[in-house]
Amino acid sequence: MNYIRESFARQKAMALIGASLTGVSAGKVEVSLPYRDDLTQQKGFVHGGIIGMIADTACGYAAYSLMPASASLVTVEYKINILAPARGALVARGEVLKAGRTLTVARAEVYAQDGKHIATMQQTLMMLPDTADTRDPSCS
Amino acid sequence: MNYIRESFARQKAMALIGASLTGVSAGKVEVSLPYRDDLTQQKGFVHGGIIGMIADTACGYAAYSLMPASASLVTVEYKINILAPARGALVARGEVLKAGRTLTVARAEVYAQDGKHIATMQQTLMMLPDTADTRDPSCS
Amino acid sequence: MNYIRESFARQKAMALIGASLTGVSAGKVEVSLPYRDDLTQQKGFVHGGIIGMIADTACGYAAYSLMPASASLVTVEYKINILAPARGALVARGEVLKAGRTLTVARAEVYAQDGKHIATMQQTLMMLPDTADTRDPSCS
Amino acid sequence: MNYIRESFARQKAMALIGASLTGVSAGKVEVSLPYRDDLTQQKGFVHGGIIGMIADTACGYAAYSLMPASASLVTVEYKINILAPARGALVARGEVLKAGRTLTVARAEVYAQDGKHIATMQQTLMMLPDTADTRDPSCS
Repeated sequence: MNYIRESFARQKAMALIGASLTGVSAGKVEVSLPYRDDLTQQKGFVHGGIIGMIADTACGYAAYSLMPASASLVTVEYKINILAPARGALVARGEVLKAGRTLTVARAEVYAQDGKHIATMQQTLMMLPDTADTRDPSCS
Repeated sequence: MNYIRESFARQKAMALIGASLTGVSAGKVEVSLPYRDDLTQQKGFVHGGIIGMIADTACGYAAYSLMPASASLVTVEYKINILAPARGALVARGEVLKAGRTLTVARAEVYAQDGKHIATMQQTLMMLPDTADTRDPSCS
Repeated sequence: MNYIRESFARQKAMALIGASLTGVSAGKVEVSLPYRDDLTQQKGFVHGGIIGMIADTACGYAAYSLMPASASLVTVEYKINILAPARGALVARGEVLKAGRTLTVARAEVYAQDGKHIATMQQTLMMLPDTADTRDPSCS
Repeated sequence: MNYIRESFARQKAMALIGASLTGVSAGKVEVSLPYRDDLTQQKGFVHGGIIGMIADTACGYAAYSLMPASASLVTVEYKINILAPARGALVARGEVLKAGRTLTVARAEVYAQDGKHIATMQQTLMMLPDTADTRDPSCS
């Protein structure tokens, strides 16, 4: 699963928010996010969009973990329900529901450290066969 | 609409990603995001979760703009389709579809500077009447 | 759980498609649908909207099963992924993920008789306290 | 657009609920549904799943109207917000937001006869090139 770890390491947006990859197995990926004051919305809770970011990433890599490393993937869409406000560290656990030839459907659950269920996401991804998962060098 | 601008200014997550409020009117809000390398995913495109963050925020403040300043609101859920990859500045335009007594449904469209349609979001929010839109001082 | 069975029995749309309530417990409801040729789309598979109907109903009654019988509820929104085409009897199993004071989030999984996973739904519902779950007699 | 009308005519589920195709142009399709008592839920409103059926179908044919008649399509997923209860005839207007090579994103708005906005749907569809849009004769 080294290609998963390498791809995650290239996600600068994950470094920006301080998220790390804390679990990878076939069809399952865990992303952890320590609490930081600069991740919050106006009331001091973790921003719903930040919760979406780690759930999105956990779904994406869960899907990618069942694809060949020579492929790349794009997020088609996702839907998230925020179940409770969060003011602390979070973990997003992504899991593949259905890995099709072209499309994969994944789900992520986001939990607080005390086990509270914070959010649930359903996501659709599309595999791009034989496409590099890196920056196109022709782009600045 | 000063309460909208003040609430946005308290969103530290918006400062983190460099987003700003570039339009506010009754039921419509625009959030702009300059391109930055640290907002990208592994292929150098703006991270789908970052796109979600500005669309989420544009929907939320569009909804809030039709509520009394004495109220607060929570995001119930949102669904976003990513229509095209983005490698440049983005603008998210949120608009209220239906403002109910308790629930509001909003939509946001995200565009690139060349007018390309990048993403579309549908969101549900819940009003909390007579609730401060600020940090609870009892929380550290 | 008699109020659940009675409410389901008032759903004429369920009778129209031949769906029945085959399981009710606290927070969980099962709706079964025999295959019929008049439930199909243009290729002879069960119509995606019909799959949505039974998943919607399973979520709704799962949510209602945790509410007082004096309340009523409305569907706020749902999102469904169709995972595989179906040409046979289906069962939709709804389950509550989070029962809040006002909003409930539920999920339904739809399976074929051979255990194939056909669809997955995530739904948001709103409780209306002290509201009759019956027809308003003033409406014709 | 004859292939659209012929495909719709093969949808037995549309006949079951009494829906008809009342508008077809490139990228836009309208489906109309007269009110019938057997389309209702327990409170006498049109069942949310029935509203989903016509919105789903309007999105699907809007997408199909931009594809070659030699192709077929499948619904990947949809998300619908119910904005108001309905007790009368409905019309669903589907429109393509983005027609990609493989995936199409469409939207449908559902209205009551008095112009009330009843529901809004966002849907993703996948084109299957060179695939018959008819029943596989090998299936009984």
